[in-house]
Amino acid sequence: MNLDILLDDFEAGNITRDEMKSVLRKQTFVDIGCAKIDHNREARTGGPEVVYCAGKTPDQVATIFQSMHAHNGRVLGTRAAPEHAEAVAQVLDVTYDPKSLLLTIGSPAVPALGKIVVVSAGTSDQPVAEEAAGTAEFLGSHVERHYDCGVAGIHRLFSVMDELNSASAIIAVAGMEGALPSVVGGIAVPPVIALPTSVGYGANFQGLAALLTMMNSCAPGIGVVNIDNGFGAGYLAHKINKMAVLNSK
Amino acid sequence: MNLDILLDDFEAGNITRDEMKSVLRKQTFVDIGCAKIDHNREARTGGPEVVYCAGKTPDQVATIFQSMHAHNGRVLGTRAAPEHAEAVAQVLDVTYDPKSLLLTIGSPAVPALGKIVVVSAGTSDQPVAEEAAGTAEFLGSHVERHYDCGVAGIHRLFSVMDELNSASAIIAVAGMEGALPSVVGGIAVPPVIALPTSVGYGANFQGLAALLTMMNSCAPGIGVVNIDNGFGAGYLAHKINKMAVLNSK
Amino acid sequence: MNLDILLDDFEAGNITRDEMKSVLRKQTFVDIGCAKIDHNREARTGGPEVVYCAGKTPDQVATIFQSMHAHNGRVLGTRAAPEHAEAVAQVLDVTYDPKSLLLTIGSPAVPALGKIVVVSAGTSDQPVAEEAAGTAEFLGSHVERHYDCGVAGIHRLFSVMDELNSASAIIAVAGMEGALPSVVGGIAVPPVIALPTSVGYGANFQGLAALLTMMNSCAPGIGVVNIDNGFGAGYLAHKINKMAVLNSK
Amino acid sequence: MNLDILLDDFEAGNITRDEMKSVLRKQTFVDIGCAKIDHNREARTGGPEVVYCAGKTPDQVATIFQSMHAHNGRVLGTRAAPEHAEAVAQVLDVTYDPKSLLLTIGSPAVPALGKIVVVSAGTSDQPVAEEAAGTAEFLGSHVERHYDCGVAGIHRLFSVMDELNSASAIIAVAGMEGALPSVVGGIAVPPVIALPTSVGYGANFQGLAALLTMMNSCAPGIGVVNIDNGFGAGYLAHKINKMAVLNSK
Amino acid sequence: MNLDILLDDFEAGNITRDEMKSVLRKQTFVDIGCAKIDHNREARTGGPEVVYCAGKTPDQVATIFQSMHAHNGRVLGTRAAPEHAEAVAQVLDVTYDPKSLLLTIGSPAVPALGKIVVVSAGTSDQPVAEEAAGTAEFLGSHVERHYDCGVAGIHRLFSVMDELNSASAIIAVAGMEGALPSVVGGIAVPPVIALPTSVGYGANFQGLAALLTMMNSCAPGIGVVNIDNGFGAGYLAHKINKMAVLNSK
Amino acid sequence: MNLDILLDDFEAGNITRDEMKSVLRKQTFVDIGCAKIDHNREARTGGPEVVYCAGKTPDQVATIFQSMHAHNGRVLGTRAAPEHAEAVAQVLDVTYDPKSLLLTIGSPAVPALGKIVVVSAGTSDQPVAEEAAGTAEFLGSHVERHYDCGVAGIHRLFSVMDELNSASAIIAVAGMEGALPSVVGGIAVPPVIALPTSVGYGANFQGLAALLTMMNSCAPGIGVVNIDNGFGAGYLAHKINKMAVLNSK
Amino acid sequence: MNLDILLDDFEAGNITRDEMKSVLRKQTFVDIGCAKIDHNREARTGGPEVVYCAGKTPDQVATIFQSMHAHNGRVLGTRAAPEHAEAVAQVLDVTYDPKSLLLTIGSPAVPALGKIVVVSAGTSDQPVAEEAAGTAEFLGSHVERHYDCGVAGIHRLFSVMDELNSASAIIAVAGMEGALPSVVGGIAVPPVIALPTSVGYGANFQGLAALLTMMNSCAPGIGVVNIDNGFGAGYLAHKINKMAVLNSK
Amino acid sequence: MNLDILLDDFEAGNITRDEMKSVLRKQTFVDIGCAKIDHNREARTGGPEVVYCAGKTPDQVATIFQSMHAHNGRVLGTRAAPEHAEAVAQVLDVTYDPKSLLLTIGSPAVPALGKIVVVSAGTSDQPVAEEAAGTAEFLGSHVERHYDCGVAGIHRLFSVMDELNSASAIIAVAGMEGALPSVVGGIAVPPVIALPTSVGYGANFQGLAALLTMMNSCAPGIGVVNIDNGFGAGYLAHKINKMAVLNSK
Repeated sequence: MNLDILLDDFEAGNITRDEMKSVLRKQTFVDIGCAKIDHNREARTGGPEVVYCAGKTPDQVATIFQSMHAHNGRVLGTRAAPEHAEAVAQVLDVTYDPKSLLLTIGSPAVPALGKIVVVSAGTSDQPVAEEAAGTAEFLGSHVERHYDCGVAGIHRLFSVMDELNSASAIIAVAGMEGALPSVVGGIAVPPVIALPTSVGYGANFQGLAALLTMMNSCAPGIGVVNIDNGFGAGYLAHKINKMAVLNSK
Repeated sequence: MNLDILLDDFEAGNITRDEMKSVLRKQTFVDIGCAKIDHNREARTGGPEVVYCAGKTPDQVATIFQSMHAHNGRVLGTRAAPEHAEAVAQVLDVTYDPKSLLLTIGSPAVPALGKIVVVSAGTSDQPVAEEAAGTAEFLGSHVERHYDCGVAGIHRLFSVMDELNSASAIIAVAGMEGALPSVVGGIAVPPVIALPTSVGYGANFQGLAALLTMMNSCAPGIGVVNIDNGFGAGYLAHKINKMAVLNSK
Repeated sequence: MNLDILLDDFEAGNITRDEMKSVLRKQTFVDIGCAKIDHNREARTGGPEVVYCAGKTPDQVATIFQSMHAHNGRVLGTRAAPEHAEAVAQVLDVTYDPKSLLLTIGSPAVPALGKIVVVSAGTSDQPVAEEAAGTAEFLGSHVERHYDCGVAGIHRLFSVMDELNSASAIIAVAGMEGALPSVVGGIAVPPVIALPTSVGYGANFQGLAALLTMMNSCAPGIGVVNIDNGFGAGYLAHKINKMAVLNSK
Repeated sequence: MNLDILLDDFEAGNITRDEMKSVLRKQTFVDIGCAKIDHNREARTGGPEVVYCAGKTPDQVATIFQSMHAHNGRVLGTRAAPEHAEAVAQVLDVTYDPKSLLLTIGSPAVPALGKIVVVSAGTSDQPVAEEAAGTAEFLGSHVERHYDCGVAGIHRLFSVMDELNSASAIIAVAGMEGALPSVVGGIAVPPVIALPTSVGYGANFQGLAALLTMMNSCAPGIGVVNIDNGFGAGYLAHKINKMAVLNSK
Repeated sequence: MNLDILLDDFEAGNITRDEMKSVLRKQTFVDIGCAKIDHNREARTGGPEVVYCAGKTPDQVATIFQSMHAHNGRVLGTRAAPEHAEAVAQVLDVTYDPKSLLLTIGSPAVPALGKIVVVSAGTSDQPVAEEAAGTAEFLGSHVERHYDCGVAGIHRLFSVMDELNSASAIIAVAGMEGALPSVVGGIAVPPVIALPTSVGYGANFQGLAALLTMMNSCAPGIGVVNIDNGFGAGYLAHKINKMAVLNSK
Repeated sequence: MNLDILLDDFEAGNITRDEMKSVLRKQTFVDIGCAKIDHNREARTGGPEVVYCAGKTPDQVATIFQSMHAHNGRVLGTRAAPEHAEAVAQVLDVTYDPKSLLLTIGSPAVPALGKIVVVSAGTSDQPVAEEAAGTAEFLGSHVERHYDCGVAGIHRLFSVMDELNSASAIIAVAGMEGALPSVVGGIAVPPVIALPTSVGYGANFQGLAALLTMMNSCAPGIGVVNIDNGFGAGYLAHKINKMAVLNSK
Repeated sequence: MNLDILLDDFEAGNITRDEMKSVLRKQTFVDIGCAKIDHNREARTGGPEVVYCAGKTPDQVATIFQSMHAHNGRVLGTRAAPEHAEAVAQVLDVTYDPKSLLLTIGSPAVPALGKIVVVSAGTSDQPVAEEAAGTAEFLGSHVERHYDCGVAGIHRLFSVMDELNSASAIIAVAGMEGALPSVVGGIAVPPVIALPTSVGYGANFQGLAALLTMMNSCAPGIGVVNIDNGFGAGYLAHKINKMAVLNSK
Repeated sequence: MNLDILLDDFEAGNITRDEMKSVLRKQTFVDIGCAKIDHNREARTGGPEVVYCAGKTPDQVATIFQSMHAHNGRVLGTRAAPEHAEAVAQVLDVTYDPKSLLLTIGSPAVPALGKIVVVSAGTSDQPVAEEAAGTAEFLGSHVERHYDCGVAGIHRLFSVMDELNSASAIIAVAGMEGALPSVVGGIAVPPVIALPTSVGYGANFQGLAALLTMMNSCAPGIGVVNIDNGFGAGYLAHKINKMAVLNSK
């Protein structure tokens, strides 16, 4: 589809404003060789394209960051190794968090939107929980963290029950047997995003046990994301939070 | 914990109204022998206890329905076989849908709340899609169905893109390779609930292939529920929809 | 090893009473053709040989029951189908419980020994829970049942906390995500036997999800038995209970 | 729940001593930022909170040890790497065993309680067996070790049969095909805790083969813990041993 | 390759007797439409082609039996359902054993060759053990059966140790945890063929647990066949037995 | 996208003939309620939409067949049960093959195109092989069948080597260990489509063993389809055959 | 089979030219100790033997390259580590591509044959895509690359639809959920080779998720190769391309 | 059992020579602290105890070697790392083969016994094949090696058919799809030991694909050992070879 023709048609009144917007939602990207940057993803899906750094060379990541920064200003990269961070830092002013492996350009929105609660089972789950929290904050949500609330000492969870119920969405992070989201789902009102981590060993199978637990939860109202996918959990929570805060239906 | 003491303390002002509510949220059930009915689950989690009929005898299901009907009026049972329906019908006025296997007492709310879109990949996914849609409708949401929009003929999906974007939450139902939620997640704004079905054969492994596909989606903003868990998807979608419509933060 | 020689040696003082007992512990069985009945298993392991009926013909089960009844009086069969029960009933006075599929000759001991608590997550787990309870009762333990205490309504579990702590051993039965034993392990003193059931569907994989959950429990003090293995759980609980009640070390 | 009110109520006689103890069992922890230390776990479950060091930074482990040491005196850490040991050693007087990876503050109780036998199949299983033995000793049990008694030379096992039968609980440790607990369960009286190790290769799948073997044992009276979970086995054995020695029902 | 040319060449002395035999070993079959009967397999591999009846229609099985009977006289079919047996019985004089599901034409050789011992763990393993024993007998070996010798009562196995050591090959049959071959391999001289059965439930996964156990045996000298593959075990045992009895190297 | 506008634009010369075709390739379907019939799939992908009957009700299949027959004349349904065939036969003149479960309207093309060879390992693989052959014939290819050529009698395969090399594409069908495609790939020139079947038992895992074998073939030039997916193999072979016969690049 | 006799027979007219060629197709290799070089594989299968370098020592690879180079001139090695490249470079003039790990002697054919399109989902899939492209180019095909066209921004794929339809074969490369081939199969005419990569994490299971997705595609006309098997995909695509370009049936 | 008593009894004629031998077969080991050396295993099982070095410390291996060397003279260790070899070399005269990782004291028997053929699929399988060959040679068998005979060039296998048929037992070694044993089983007379290797990648799952292939072989007469278990294959082949050569039944 030729953009000139499209614009001509639009000016000539052959296609309406709504049709024009609908077409534009699907059509724009920039080919930079190693990647086709999807600059209009935010318009189309309500969230920006995010750079998954693992498996890319530092040079590729730097090039992609430059293209996205030039277009959008703000950029988010996930699973960035220190060498990715260094490569980008040579050309752009970037912030790197070695715990969550997030690589960002641009400050979080002020004021932040609504509230997301991230509750985690153990101290070892913290890096994944931080990826979730950091992602949601980058996207504009207000995030509250309550860590080390696993079911082996379940009163620690009950002590934050009011906080849980004040959120638009809860992210429940757990490794090992991953029972936390079930318990949260049984006591809290907001939608729960279950985020399994690979913390554990043996028959944990790198997080599979936690994933299956969350999939089979006897408490409803729970959606599960991939093992260690803090990014995905934060992104989904932000979508729900944004829907809750901004929607006027 | 002794309820008398609790109430005495409350009357005496030893505990506040907020503390009282918080305690009550956790405390009430009725033991009917084969089950402990959790009549206050709605107050606690924003959704009622629902009867999972599979693995229960018809008599047990009928007894549980009676207890819940006496307390709440409206009751929802899932995965009900015809013999469950018959047993309940002998004592209560109940509606049974043999396609979705939902067994219900009470009509959906009027007017229904907000909008949830259920989009499915193939005709064979319909029973699971109906369980999702029926659950959300029972809980009070307005639901719009768009079936047979699988990626083998992807223009069928594009034809409903505006409908997708008008929802508070999208349930994307697919068996076989389960690619539909990824594509929906790449073109639509609302949060997406991915619902894998066991439709398929061979290396599909009764829905595992679709489940893994959805777990690994390259498009973010997607939460996954268990294979064939239409109930879970409908329940989560309703929670998000309710949050979007009623929230005033 | 020749029993005559053994006895001669013993009379002649060549082997001591202790050695004699140790040898006898390992040596006696009766070959009835289709099976070698291990009549001394109780002396050797502290529990009788039990008949696993599945996969045996009704005739084989009846023959084995006759041999064991003639030797021990009391007999326990597990996973007995109605046709097994009928075949045995034609030759022996036997009791059959169609829910737990236990087939027994002989009443439970009076008074029963100590206390075992069986706590289960849902009504659908009842047949497996009953196999556990019935096995422990047959072996001589006192058993207390608390069913339908799943974590989706966790206050139902807290309501029986004192009962849990009064037992020598707790059997925690759960299907679906199987989170119950973790929560019990985090709030109760006695050793916990985790008993996963095949209740569930989809990514439950016939109980595998519950099994893995229990294996990976973040609460310690938990031993797991096979999926739906109520017999094994009841047997182990009885062994612990007996150790707790009778031991004089 | 407000502790002041609770104490007021208790002093005022509104709640009894028993209720007071029951509440306190569930209520106390200390939030140190990266963790919520569950100092009352011993009162609640009969065993102290134990620090799982894997996945925590050395600094986090040191901070947690300090908090727990200040409160309880004795502390146990598992799966501690040398760098965890070094970080704690800079602030506390701590003992590190590089074979079992246990990191401890405080000597075992004298005299030790009852008897637990740890029997292992091969020399390569020793680190896991030592984690089990060391855990039980830390908790206060007397432990006897019999290593390298695998079924390929089954007379080695028979040579310790009397020792097996003198214990309150047996921990049977095995990798590869994991047949040892089945054989032990067939010849010994005490409850058996089956502890699979990841020793092996190929279709062993990092201990899964041994785990499945133990799960499916034809000998009853066996509870299984996670692969390489020496800590869990030692903890459970201690609970059974303590029940056997101290119980006066 | 043209047989006329081949024979001409042979008569003309272009190819030697040895080459002629080698070629013929690879070349002959009869195409009967639904199958290509490999009548010379015995010459080539030392054992006849055997009919796997499962998945074939009764008519196909009957046609194949007729072709093979006409050529070799003796025929063996495995996994034959009653309807296969009936279809063949209408055209040929055939023997059917409903336990092992073997369908045979022709009596076993007299005298039978050497000795194979089939030792099984439980009564429920008998059908598979019988398929193994019957196959070896059909092929010409002398077979001795010792059933119900599982490791839960290991003295039953020791009572037949001399018989085990008198064989050319041992087939050890076991379901559940499948520990029998390991124990046999640790006490007996002859090569051991491990034959896992699907007897069991739960985490047995239809025999997978037993298969993995046997694969990982710590006792060497064990070769494993497929789950429930009595035919394969009997066939391999016969090959070893024949090698042991007839070889003159 | 509005078709009127599109056509206006085309008439007005705003979009070219090529663009017009490209757009139309993606745009047409008919919504018949339970399904959205993709009548233009043939134009878009070179092959018609085919009805997967499993999981659809007979009525749904009949309705879909009517819609597709009215539009295209010829229709192909796969995995049709007899009740599907009966429902369609009441409204249309249809052919049903109970072996391959194909349900067709319309005769194969005359003359058929090029050549596809279907070679199978055993007689039990025939239903799947026939689904492949029948699909390719329906689509217009000439198909040659060579069944029962498994590697246990590998000379049967070598006897058809010239036929293999005369094809545009070979479909190699095998269950059990699935070694046939590897051997074919090592001796034949055309591209090989490996088609695993679920024939087998035990560690075959319903065809998974054969699938993995084919995936890991040491001979290159092999593409694998799903277990028992004769339709997919026939479809792909036809695409390659058509490319080979008609292409004029 | 003796080559002298074979040649004598041929000269003497005992075997025809066609038989001679057929025999030679199967007979020639050179034994170089660590390997048996299959120099006639190209004559037999239409593609040369290719060296799989992984698991071979650098010396073995160098020796094999020398033998193959002496016989064919051109040589292709896959999965070559830098040390393999160095060892070969010491004795031969060789080209090494560190991205695709291909090690080659000899330039691609000029002009290249027909057209293969390689389309990939993400930048991280590039090494595997390059192995596919490089293999096909080495074998003589013309290859066109379109990278980073994943379904999260599906318009990027639609922008190359005309290029897809101009190929003889399409290789669709994707990791994560692997949905790309399904979408390509639904919009393009040529046969599609689905190439899953191990890009991803968690429930991706090193590419298994993508593999299963591709196996279960609802769009037909797709053959799948092993995870990360760029070589296999390139080889198969070349076979199809060659068939399309050179065939004259 | 007390050896003094046993010997007294024997001298006194209380037990016969045969009983004496039978008892001794089961009774002797030496406890060296970290291990219980089973010095009489050869008398009992026809093969010596062999040291599995993986997972043992170099010191433990050296101590075990010394004990075994003092008792038997000859010693075999498997999976020995260089540091194991060095530790043993400091105290004993030992031979280390870095390819097969075998560590041996004592030369092979002269003359070697009978014949075992080791046939492997690819050059990368050589280390595992060498472990098998070296083990059998150490135990006293004559071994013939034929490597790189995989089914992708199947004539390489046919060229050694006469050698295959001259053996008492064949070890067929293969990674990737592992089809070699099936083909060997279809063309050769001796029993076949299938030895899967972990050579491969992707859906090979570290040798699982090859293992399943071999388990499901359509050719009978095949016993399978664990992935990469060259030791087990060599040991079993030696047992069969010895049975074939020495047996005089």
